[in-house]
Amino acid sequence: MANIAIMGFGTVGAGVAEVVRMNGASIAEKLGEEIQIKYILDIRDFSNSPYADKMIKDFAVIENDPEVDVVVETIGGAKVALDFTRRALQAGKHVVTSNKELVATHGRELLAIAKERNVNYLFEASVGGGIPVLRPLYQCLAANQIEEIAGILNGTTNYILTRMVKGGISFADALKEAQSKGYAEADPTADVEGIDACRKICILSNLAWGREVAPEKVATEGISSIHLRDVDIAASAGYRIKLLGRAFRLPDGRQTAYVAPHLVPESCPIATVDDVFNGIMIRGNAVGDVMFYGRGAGDLPTASAVLGDVIDALQHRSKRRNLGWEESAEITDAGVLPMKWYLRGDFSASDAEAVCGGKVEVLADGAVITPELSSAEAKAAAEKLCAVAMLHVL
Amino acid sequence: MANIAIMGFGTVGAGVAEVVRMNGASIAEKLGEEIQIKYILDIRDFSNSPYADKMIKDFAVIENDPEVDVVVETIGGAKVALDFTRRALQAGKHVVTSNKELVATHGRELLAIAKERNVNYLFEASVGGGIPVLRPLYQCLAANQIEEIAGILNGTTNYILTRMVKGGISFADALKEAQSKGYAEADPTADVEGIDACRKICILSNLAWGREVAPEKVATEGISSIHLRDVDIAASAGYRIKLLGRAFRLPDGRQTAYVAPHLVPESCPIATVDDVFNGIMIRGNAVGDVMFYGRGAGDLPTASAVLGDVIDALQHRSKRRNLGWEESAEITDAGVLPMKWYLRGDFSASDAEAVCGGKVEVLADGAVITPELSSAEAKAAAEKLCAVAMLHVL
Repeated sequence: MANIAIMGFGTVGAGVAEVVRMNGASIAEKLGEEIQIKYILDIRDFSNSPYADKMIKDFAVIENDPEVDVVVETIGGAKVALDFTRRALQAGKHVVTSNKELVATHGRELLAIAKERNVNYLFEASVGGGIPVLRPLYQCLAANQIEEIAGILNGTTNYILTRMVKGGISFADALKEAQSKGYAEADPTADVEGIDACRKICILSNLAWGREVAPEKVATEGISSIHLRDVDIAASAGYRIKLLGRAFRLPDGRQTAYVAPHLVPESCPIATVDDVFNGIMIRGNAVGDVMFYGRGAGDLPTASAVLGDVIDALQHRSKRRNLGWEESAEITDAGVLPMKWYLRGDFSASDAEAVCGGKVEVLADGAVITPELSSAEAKAAAEKLCAVAMLHVL
Repeated sequence: MANIAIMGFGTVGAGVAEVVRMNGASIAEKLGEEIQIKYILDIRDFSNSPYADKMIKDFAVIENDPEVDVVVETIGGAKVALDFTRRALQAGKHVVTSNKELVATHGRELLAIAKERNVNYLFEASVGGGIPVLRPLYQCLAANQIEEIAGILNGTTNYILTRMVKGGISFADALKEAQSKGYAEADPTADVEGIDACRKICILSNLAWGREVAPEKVATEGISSIHLRDVDIAASAGYRIKLLGRAFRLPDGRQTAYVAPHLVPESCPIATVDDVFNGIMIRGNAVGDVMFYGRGAGDLPTASAVLGDVIDALQHRSKRRNLGWEESAEITDAGVLPMKWYLRGDFSASDAEAVCGGKVEVLADGAVITPELSSAEAKAAAEKLCAVAMLHVL
């Protein structure tokens, strides 16, 4: 019998309890022991919940109970969650979380405590919701040198972009629709401005290359200024606009990462990832491109990943998973990498070719894809052409 | 320092040696010890190879050397490979393989020996080449009850079908092209008739539900009788023809599996998996649908998966991965499941509706998709309509 405590009984926390209820018997069969929820910590009132007898309000109960093997942190944010995670690890408990903000901003410290206390700190659910991606990255692909990661990492913005493409509606209307469906929060900033995607590309980068990338060092651009006109032009020309988090390791060992909307050619598997789904492409020097696809959020999918980690932690009780990242990575400005750009304005293709110094791909009247340029070169070209839209191209 | 022995120095075996050469330093950093190739067993002459000093011809050298930690079996087939794998496990060595035939036909016995000897027998590379899929299935998705698996599991047939769709060439011509590119063997039977895909869906099913499915019990249909005309009709109507291995667990606990070509709607992520790539969709009752995509074959991709397993085996030296399947599964005839079917012949839509007892979707003149029917019902309808083509629809 293994005892777990859930901290934070919101969407994901309640999902974890529900999956234990649904699948407890089959989990016990695989694991060789039963998982029991001993406590649920939440300051709100759940006296009418079927879990009322497990509800507690004082973290010290969990901290001081030697019977608690694994603590599931689904509080979110980096305040209370940070304090409780530190203390739970210090108390020798394995901690499993879906909290990308905490992992991206304090993962290094928390992993160091976990190492010192010989316990696991696992966070598969922090990237891609239910999609298995972190463990495949650090374990199955461990024989590779990872060269690049590119992912649709945020379901809310992908839903909005999909509605703009398929429904022909504006960003503002698509956002309202996402809010009414519960896919976007009342304050959608973290999703819409790419902050959530930024945290996730940092976590992926940290695991891929073992060095911490601070989210504030990653150039991050959201989707709020995307025009329907560019979505339409892209679609007619065989491209989809997607918000991508990207991270690279250059052959000389430099690292870079950024978040921005991209035109993605339809032939690329990531282009067909629609609605609230996520898709993460990883390129390794032996395996080539692999992609992982599925629901990037939601109660049960995220709980699936959390409980996968709980099972893994219990299977690695004595010999912890050697997981972590240490010194900070130096981040090269991604703008120096030569890339193709989408430009739209009141210019002709030959104007564009003269300014860009090379052949352009014409998508529509006044809309082109440039040859490979650094971001400074592309910005200079956009200025000369009086372009009104400028976007990355994958 | 960990010592490995490679048995079989063909495409995959040589790929393993190459990835150790390319990425040995980064692997050592992650693993905390260096991996050294101590022996390479092959009866052929490699005296001019850079690995000449490691070549041996007598398996007993490996079997009797206590310094060999992990044996990589890349011989293929179920004769010599079976004998050597048995003996390596009996000798207390971890064994890692890419040999789907051996795992599908003798996995149960070999996993039982591994359990008894407290060593690992790992085979990520046996399904999907370099794509991480088996470990995600049995580990990351362990909190789910798996409901269905559907995969493009064979790169050769997927290449042929892609060329038929995109190149407009016949099966025979596409096969010749695949052979000239080295994607298909001189005797292409195992690929083209679905035998390879059948072994892989059996391995996935065994891991998903813990019971052994014997390949010979799985109804298996290949692609050699696919007409270009049906490929064209499907493509014009928004479907792609794909060879799928499918396995289900019904709510009442019955299991089934089969391999057959399917019309797959383009909106399904698996439809866009082209060329020699593989894509495997897994449906769990918590996570929903997840998909894994990448190169399903090739020297370095497959070696990536093999070495991922080698690393995992070395990390689980003392406490082996609890992996396996036991008693044989009872396989229900997949034909009893109601499914949609594609029928083509010289009949009208109203004829088809009268015979099928329900609304059909018309793809072209004389080509329809039926309402859900058992395979017996569909066959009866096809006979009455004198249909010349009958295919599954996903």
